[in-house]
Amino acid sequence: MTFYFEDFSVGRVFELGQCAVSEEEIVAFATGYDPQPFHTDRVAAADSMFGGLIASGVHTMALYMRLFVEGVLGDSASQGSPGIDEMRWPAPVRPGDTLRARYTVASARKSRSRPEWGIVTGLASAENQEGVTVMTMSVINLFTRRYAAEADGRLASPGPVAPL
Amino acid sequence: MTFYFEDFSVGRVFELGQCAVSEEEIVAFATGYDPQPFHTDRVAAADSMFGGLIASGVHTMALYMRLFVEGVLGDSASQGSPGIDEMRWPAPVRPGDTLRARYTVASARKSRSRPEWGIVTGLASAENQEGVTVMTMSVINLFTRRYAAEADGRLASPGPVAPL
Repeated sequence: MTFYFEDFSVGRVFELGQCAVSEEEIVAFATGYDPQPFHTDRVAAADSMFGGLIASGVHTMALYMRLFVEGVLGDSASQGSPGIDEMRWPAPVRPGDTLRARYTVASARKSRSRPEWGIVTGLASAENQEGVTVMTMSVINLFTRRYAAEADGRLASPGPVAPL
Repeated sequence: MTFYFEDFSVGRVFELGQCAVSEEEIVAFATGYDPQPFHTDRVAAADSMFGGLIASGVHTMALYMRLFVEGVLGDSASQGSPGIDEMRWPAPVRPGDTLRARYTVASARKSRSRPEWGIVTGLASAENQEGVTVMTMSVINLFTRRYAAEADGRLASPGPVAPL
């Protein structure tokens, strides 16, 4: 386990790597979860205001999440996420794009109701191969504090709560 | 085409229907996009603070989006979405749950930069079969105004802009 609450110092930047986005995946995701023609139908998309297929914003968020889990959450004392704020898609994601993801710690404080946990808010951002930002959002996460994990000899798992 | 900007009066409620969530779908979605053990591994999930498998919050959002597209967006003069605010998951979604989705118009105003468009903010909510709310979020959408569509004789598609 690499990352505890104390590892999320304000301003720390985590580079989360990149992933390619294919037309096939854009269409498959949107067919299942966001079946609007400019996400699922190449011909209709060409006639839309976007001039061609673009990824669902939900899909872009999901691709970010995979990189975030692989790069940080999956190797952390995560206790889940209460939510996400200010999700924006300032530019479209198109077939063949490669997205690069980054997570920057914006705030970190101890939980008032759960002193063994801390609450971290991070600015999530993804940009394409031309450096254009395609998504930003503010992600809230809970992490066990290191002393609590050490005192337990394992990760604290005190059961579901409303920790904010 | 049923829904133009003018159809989103503040307070109007759209019942979006329901969908069942299977363990297979929870695991498949999370394996692709949010591979944390409490989403993908039944045994590890039983030992987690959640006491069993729960759906990724991204998955819950995606399920909502499908119902929103099927019930409203897919039959509307939608011009896309700039983003989403205040996404929260107050209770977990578990295998076998059935989610019921609702969209309530919270605000509606004309676009300042694009007078032929309007900007609608809606409260999205999903509850399970016991009436427990499992997700809320505030969704922003752009819709063509009816007069503009009628003047065009078709949906206005004036190209990508930053309409806020």
